[in-house]
This record gives sequence, C-alpha cells and structure tokens, in this order.
Amino acid sequence: MLKIDEDYWNMDSFDKTEAHDILKKSAKKPPNLKEILSSERIKSMSLENKDLSISLSYACEQINEEILDQLYDLADQMHVKEKMKKLQSMEIMNYVQGSLGENRPVGHATMRKKVASSDTEKVKKTAISYQNELEKLAQFIREIDHLKHIVLIAIGGSYLGTDAVYNALKCYQKNDKVLYFASNIDPDKTASIMEEIDINETLVITVSKSGSTLEIKATEALFRKRFKEANINPKERFVVVTSQSSPMDTPEEYLKSFYMWDYIGGRYSVSSTVGAVPLSIIFGMEIWNEFLEGLRNVDQHVLTSENRKNIPLLGALLSVWNRSFLNIPTQAIIPYSAGLKKWTAHLQQVFMESNGKHVRQSNGEYVDYETGAIIWGGIGTETQHSFFQWIHQGSSEISLEFIGFKSMQYSKSSDALIQKTTNQEKLLSNLFAQMISLAKGQDTSDHNKQFVGNRSSRLLFAEQLTPKALGEILAYYEHLVAYQGFIWDINSFDQEGVQLGKVCANDIIDLFKTKRESVDVEENSTTILAKAYLNKFKLL
Amino acid sequence: MLKIDEDYWNMDSFDKTEAHDILKKSAKKPPNLKEILSSERIKSMSLENKDLSISLSYACEQINEEILDQLYDLADQMHVKEKMKKLQSMEIMNYVQGSLGENRPVGHATMRKKVASSDTEKVKKTAISYQNELEKLAQFIREIDHLKHIVLIAIGGSYLGTDAVYNALKCYQKNDKVLYFASNIDPDKTASIMEEIDINETLVITVSKSGSTLEIKATEALFRKRFKEANINPKERFVVVTSQSSPMDTPEEYLKSFYMWDYIGGRYSVSSTVGAVPLSIIFGMEIWNEFLEGLRNVDQHVLTSENRKNIPLLGALLSVWNRSFLNIPTQAIIPYSAGLKKWTAHLQQVFMESNGKHVRQSNGEYVDYETGAIIWGGIGTETQHSFFQWIHQGSSEISLEFIGFKSMQYSKSSDALIQKTTNQEKLLSNLFAQMISLAKGQDTSDHNKQFVGNRSSRLLFAEQLTPKALGEILAYYEHLVAYQGFIWDINSFDQEGVQLGKVCANDIIDLFKTKRESVDVEENSTTILAKAYLNKFKLL
Repeated sequence: MLKIDEDYWNMDSFDKTEAHDILKKSAKKPPNLKEILSSERIKSMSLENKDLSISLSYACEQINEEILDQLYDLADQMHVKEKMKKLQSMEIMNYVQGSLGENRPVGHATMRKKVASSDTEKVKKTAISYQNELEKLAQFIREIDHLKHIVLIAIGGSYLGTDAVYNALKCYQKNDKVLYFASNIDPDKTASIMEEIDINETLVITVSKSGSTLEIKATEALFRKRFKEANINPKERFVVVTSQSSPMDTPEEYLKSFYMWDYIGGRYSVSSTVGAVPLSIIFGMEIWNEFLEGLRNVDQHVLTSENRKNIPLLGALLSVWNRSFLNIPTQAIIPYSAGLKKWTAHLQQVFMESNGKHVRQSNGEYVDYETGAIIWGGIGTETQHSFFQWIHQGSSEISLEFIGFKSMQYSKSSDALIQKTTNQEKLLSNLFAQMISLAKGQDTSDHNKQFVGNRSSRLLFAEQLTPKALGEILAYYEHLVAYQGFIWDINSFDQEGVQLGKVCANDIIDLFKTKRESVDVEENSTTILAKAYLNKFKLL
Repeated sequence: MLKIDEDYWNMDSFDKTEAHDILKKSAKKPPNLKEILSSERIKSMSLENKDLSISLSYACEQINEEILDQLYDLADQMHVKEKMKKLQSMEIMNYVQGSLGENRPVGHATMRKKVASSDTEKVKKTAISYQNELEKLAQFIREIDHLKHIVLIAIGGSYLGTDAVYNALKCYQKNDKVLYFASNIDPDKTASIMEEIDINETLVITVSKSGSTLEIKATEALFRKRFKEANINPKERFVVVTSQSSPMDTPEEYLKSFYMWDYIGGRYSVSSTVGAVPLSIIFGMEIWNEFLEGLRNVDQHVLTSENRKNIPLLGALLSVWNRSFLNIPTQAIIPYSAGLKKWTAHLQQVFMESNGKHVRQSNGEYVDYETGAIIWGGIGTETQHSFFQWIHQGSSEISLEFIGFKSMQYSKSSDALIQKTTNQEKLLSNLFAQMISLAKGQDTSDHNKQFVGNRSSRLLFAEQLTPKALGEILAYYEHLVAYQGFIWDINSFDQEGVQLGKVCANDIIDLFKTKRESVDVEENSTTILAKAYLNKFKLL
C-alpha cells in the first residue's frame, strides 16, 4: 500500500478549498444566458492556440469573468499543474491513499512522446519500448497485406476507442480492408461476424492485457474452432496484443505478439499497441503517426501552457462548474460530424469509468460531493430529431458540448449547392441554431410553445476532422477527464467498481456448469439469488 | 383550438391525485434492496402472460406490495384504462388543452390492427388503407428484386426505428440486400454511402411525411445528382413514402409512392409504411407480418388486461415511481443481445421526444413535477466495461432496465461449450450478476472497494429475439411511454420543443446564402448572434 503523504497537495480536498466555498456562493445566482448572451461575448469567450487546430467557445456557459477567476483559483488550490506534470512524468498517480487497489504510474501520454533528454528514465524506457513495437508493426503490416478481413477480439477500452477512431477516419482509408469488432461474449455477435467474413482472407487480433480475460478467451475459442473447421492453422492467422510474459504471450499459438504495459488503462489505450495494431493495418503507419502527432500536440500544450491558456483545463473547469456547483447531473456530447458516430460511446467510458468514483484519492474517505456526470449523446443533426425535445422543454436541466468542423471530411465535390447553400453549411447552421436557441429560448403565451432557455453549452471547433485533429480532440478529452479527477480529488485511473460484477458472474457461470457435470458450487448470497432467476427462466 | 373539457378525467392532474400524496410519503422511506432482495421475491415479483413471450421481473426495484397498490391507485386516478381505449379508438389524444398545437388522433396501433366489426369508422378506414399499402408493397418488392443496395433517406423517427429493427432482425434476412441510412444532412454521411454503393444496383427510398423537409430534400438532391452523372434516370430508382398529395407525391419523379398519415408520429412510425417499405424489401413480407403480429399482441394485451396484469403499465408505474417519487433523473436501458445495438437510440427518441414535456395536457399549465427521465444505455456486456463503474460507484443514483433472452438468435451450432458453459450462458450470467450486485452491493472496510448497493433495476425477458418477440418488445415500450404520459398528464404525441431550433437554423442558412448573392436577411436576435459565430470561424 502506497503512502505518499509527504506530497503537499494531498492535504487538499475539493470541498475543503477556499475557492470551493466562494464558488458555492456564486452558484446561488449564476448569470442567465437569456440576458447575457451577446455578439461581444461570442467574440471574446473563446480559447485558441496557434499550435492547435482545436478551439473552445464558451459564450453559452452560465459563467462570467468573476466565476472564471474563481474556477482558476480552484484549479490552483487543487494543484492541477503539478499533478499533470507528475502524470506525464509517469510518477505513481494511479492510487487511492489507504486502499489496497492499483498503485502505479499512468502511461498513455508516453505512447505519443518524442523522447527528450530531460525525460525521466521511466518515460524514456516506455516511449522507446513503444517505438520498437511500432517498428515491428510496420514490418508486420507488409507481411499480412493480403488479408482483407480483420477481426478484433477486444472488450471495453480496447474496443471502444479503436471503433471510435476507425469510424472517424474511414475516409482516409486507402486499402479495401474491413475491421470487425468481436467486442462481446454474446455468441450472436460472433455468429454475425462469421457470416460476413471470408475465412480465407481473415486475420484475427486478440487484445487482452492480462492474457486471462474469460470473455476474450471464450470468443477467441469460437474463432479458432472456425479456422480449424476450414482447415486453416489458427497460428497463421492469430495475432495477440498483451503484456509481455502474460499467459497469452505464446509464440506457438500466435503469428505475432505485440506488447502493452500495465500502466496503460484500457480506456486510455487507443494510442498504444491496442489501437495501433488494428488501425495501422487499416490506415497505414503514416495516418497513425499523424494521429499520434495530434495527441502529442495537446500533451505538450497542457504541460507548457499557463492555466488560463490551457484548453482541456478550461473544459474541465466548466464541467466541474456545471456538475458540482450548478448541480446539473448529466452532460450530452453532440458532434456534428458523421465520422464521430462512435465518439460518445468511447467518451462515456473515458469519463464515466474514470470519474464515476466515490472516494477521495488523498485519503480514501467517501466524497461528500458529486463527482463525474453521466455522459451521453449522439451526433447532430440526428439527435435533434430525437432527444432534443427533452433538452429544450423537459422538466430538468442538462449541459452540452457540441463538436463542429468548418469543412467536411470527404471531397467537397461530393457536396453541392442546394437552394443556394451547401449541405455542410446547413449542418453548421443547425449546430449554431441549437446553441443559440438553447441559450435564448423563446417567450410566448402558449406554454406548450415556450422555450425557457438558459441551457448551457460549449463548442469544440476545428477546421476539419483530419487524423491530426482527431488526435487533438482525443487528447483534449483524456486530459479534461484527468483535470476533473485532480480537482475532485479522485483517482481517475482505476476501476474497482467493475470488480463485483465480474466475481458474481463467475459464480453464476459455475451454476450453469452444474447442468452438465457435478460441480461443487459454494453457496453464497449471489448463488442463492441467481438460482432463483435461473430456475424461474428454466435455465438450469 | 380543441376544447374537450367535458372529459371528466381532465379534472385530474398527476400531483392533484390522492395517490400522489400517499406515494410521496412512501418515498420518504423506500425499501432497501440490500435488505429485502430474496429468492422468494424473485419468484413472485414477475408479470407474465400466456399469450405473450415477454415477461417483466421487478424484484430488484425499490418497491413493496404496499407501494405497488398505491401505484395502481395512481393509475386508476389518472384513468389510464379509459385513455388507452380512446387512444386505440383513434379519438383525439394528441392535444394540449388551450394550446394552438397538434390536435389529432394517434394512429400507430391501428397499423397492426385486424379490423373487427366493433371498431370505430376511423380505425377501420385507417387499418384498411394501410393494408392496401402493404398489398402494393408486396407487388413492388417483386418488381425491384434485382436491386441490392437500398438507401433510406430519412431522419429522426423515420430513421431510428427502422435502423433498430433492421439490426435486430439481421439474422432473419434471406437475401443479400444491404440497407444504408442517409439519416443526416451531413454531406460526409452522404459521401460515405456513395463510396459504398454500386449505383447500378441501388434503390433510394425517401421518407417525408410533409414532403417538404429541407434536410430530406437536400440529401435527396445529392443522390439524384449522382444518378444523373451515372446516366440513370432517377425516376426509375426513387421511391417515396409521404402523405397523399404532399409536395413529394409526384409520380413524374418517383417510381412509386407509398402513403402515410398525419396521425402517425415519426417516433411511432416504424410499423407504418415508413418501416414497412425498407424492411419488407430486406426481410420479406412474412417476417414483416410476424413483427406486426407481435405488436398487435401487446396492443390487445393492454386493451384487454386488467391493470394488475398489464405489463407495459407495470413498466410505466415503476418508472414513474423512480422518476417522480425517488427523484432518479435517468434510466439506462441495457439489452444483453448484440441484435439490439441500436435499440437504445430508438428508445431515446420514443421516450424523450414523447415525455420530455413541461406542460399539463389537461390545462396547458406548467408542470410542477419532473416528467420523462433521460434514457440512455447500450448493450451488455459491452457497457459493463464502460460506464458500469459509474453505476456501481458513482456519486449519484440511476435506475436500469435490462433486456435478456434465453436463447441466442443465430443457430446454436455457432456457440460451443468453452470451459463447460456456452457463451450464451456466460452472457446471461453477466446479466444476472449485474442485477444482483447492483441490488446487494458489497461491504468492506476499503472504501474504494465498497459497493453501496440498493441500485434499482428490472428485467424484460423473452425466449428469443424473433420478429414476433421484437414486435412485442417495441409495443411494450410504445405503450409504456403512453401510460407515462397519461399518468404525468402530458401530451406524449407532439414535439413543439424541436420547432425553435428549426426556425433558427433557417435564419442561419439565410446568412450563408449572403456569401453568394444579395439576400435580404431580416436582422433578429438569432441572426445577430449567429453572425458573431460565423465571423469568428471565418464561415462567411
């Protein structure tokens, strides 16, 4: 169990800071967007950086300069700058004081690091190890170029991030390979993929950090069976991404092993070999490196910018304001870009598995305040015709983050002037229309046609959804989530809350085994209750 | 403006009922699942019906028999039985007293009606009209059987329901047709579909009730342009689903017109021609009729069952309890079935566009209570590795609805015994493990490994995800939402909250037009603010 009580900032916890109390007072009478939103505000309330393609517009948040000052005080009092530096130096930041849980550095930013002499040994070693994997990978891609159907057996973070990036960059794909995601123990998922692939042209990539995840092994077994039935030696077609020396690091069973490290959390793994292996096969190393460059730009930006110029920090502070002070329980993320259709699903994991926590990192005690919000959403304009009714006229409040791009991704020749505007212009018109109408509302005597307004939103904007811009957007969210954790004094890097379900599931799997042979299942509160369900549905 | 103040139940509103006050008291000390969940409770707290394949298990809800009695009293006092009867008789139920909004019957249940002599004339006429369309459709399917790529240009309800059903029944598809959804004005969406289809084998179905939706027309224009470039006459390949005599009911431009009616709301349209045309082309009329049969079974069930036996009503009462009395702001819906991957997106619309409302139907006054919850979710087990951390250990509470099936959809031969259980059994083990662990939690002195428990959930269960079961599940949710609206005294069938954004978007589109020609744009509060954004991002 780690003790780092010599660290001065561990004396602070979110609700014990001076800024917290001041913000609580400010939140009693927040500014009303119906009154304050103006052209001047739109012009001035935006954070840009000449080295980045992303910018953040926050004119439609229920804040003013005074509240912003208080939020930056909170950031200082929670020592976000020092914590980010420790994080990126790979000091131990994944811990909860007094808990027997995870206790290690956090390495994802190192995956896109260009090593400098000033880096710590740990960072240097990790970055170089990853570079070696990428070199192995570049060679490997040439060897398997004849295989067109790529099946990725991966769950959770190993799946969601890769799927999100795959969809976001599809228009940059130069070959005719297709990526399938066997992301679920559900045998229907496996069966539907088997119907679509040509086994003779298929490569399977299995991802498991521990090399012992039951869901992964059970899904892989179905695919290996299928290859054997087709008289193809699975060893020739299976690749593994795992920790070195894990139970799956077995050259006799895999064509190739690529390595990952225990300080890469699943939900932060897309820039590691977890994303690199499938996505470089699809897009090539050049696109992959552009994507890493975008990530790296933001990693550097958060280290080198002063707090007032730090874009992810601003995003974090605004969300903490909405969640902890205005008591808004959820945040919707709405990209106006078809390519980002899987983005919200990935961000749900990044945000909610990181910051859906109930203990303070600095002392292991329960929090007395709300931590991470529910993150949900979907792409515009589709969601306008779905849940936006609720957002405009529902009985409770939410906050929103919109994502928009000046230009479309595909060739502009595939758009056209229709009724004197391009469809990209119509798309952007809808985006700005939502921000403005949510903020301003509409008064009328017919209550059913009334819009109360004063609904908060902000806008992350970029020129175009390129590989580099996508990297920036991903790192923007990764660091935003880290800053939220720093401010709320929680550990954003473990996931103890998924353990109980796993243990219970294994108990119930044992009950199913009793259908076929005599298995000694220890009776406990789970098995007793589970038996009632299994009997009820005639499953035993 | 409609006045139906002679209707006796319009005197009642949710928070004025006797049951409401009693339930408020009960909610001060709800039963704690950690203490009460038992095998006995699991056995008894379930509602089934011999004519239906779905059942609802509610042992893991924070209720007891006393609260259930009070909820059924609330249902009586809000006259749900009479309201459902009026709804299915196509009396005018889409209205808000005193508002100049929609004012018409609600027709979706009539889409699956077998006409009986006791039916009202309106129901008979509508049902027969739809049957005629289905006959036209059966003939049409044979005529266009050579076309393999089907593009559906549809937004909102015309898209989400169809996409949800398409994915849910994919394993029943007998031909090799592919359905593409041009569901967004986003030109990247259109461009990505154009890259995938073979224009020589493509049929386009355009759906627009009004025949004048700008997004639909602008997307269709891009596709028509593409056909012309390929020297194919668009008239030979474009089909329209619209209202009779709408601006799109133009035989000179379409190969065929299929009709819909103004009393079919978009989010309830999947059983009408809106879903029938694309989905029957994919699945054939036989599967379509099985799906309608499932819907019809539940339509009948809610009309003929006493309240205590009515499954969708129970679902509605439990959600009203969670939302209005326990103050839980969101509900996650988690199907453990890969086929239901688009289900949550569809239900978000059905629930949130229906019941994200702020005025009382009976008098047009604002509600003083919370109405529809935020609906979100995704499929298990994928979401277990994503946001379930938050659900188990986050700082606030949600309620859940799980959906599960005894058997997989694809042939059981595609599953196998791996470590002595099938993967379907492992999948179900995870489902029950989540319900039990959420309810029971886990006590330990390490706070970071503590699970507070007492998290509410329920389970909708069926034998297998067949077309008929899917119809039952869809109708379960459609009627559940209607019952929620009846109880909350809101109109679940209009969507005034989407209007303001549309008006603002058109104003901004006018601003874009000024880039190319002199257009007289009236200055208003939207255009002033929008100009600030457009100038900021150099869009003008």
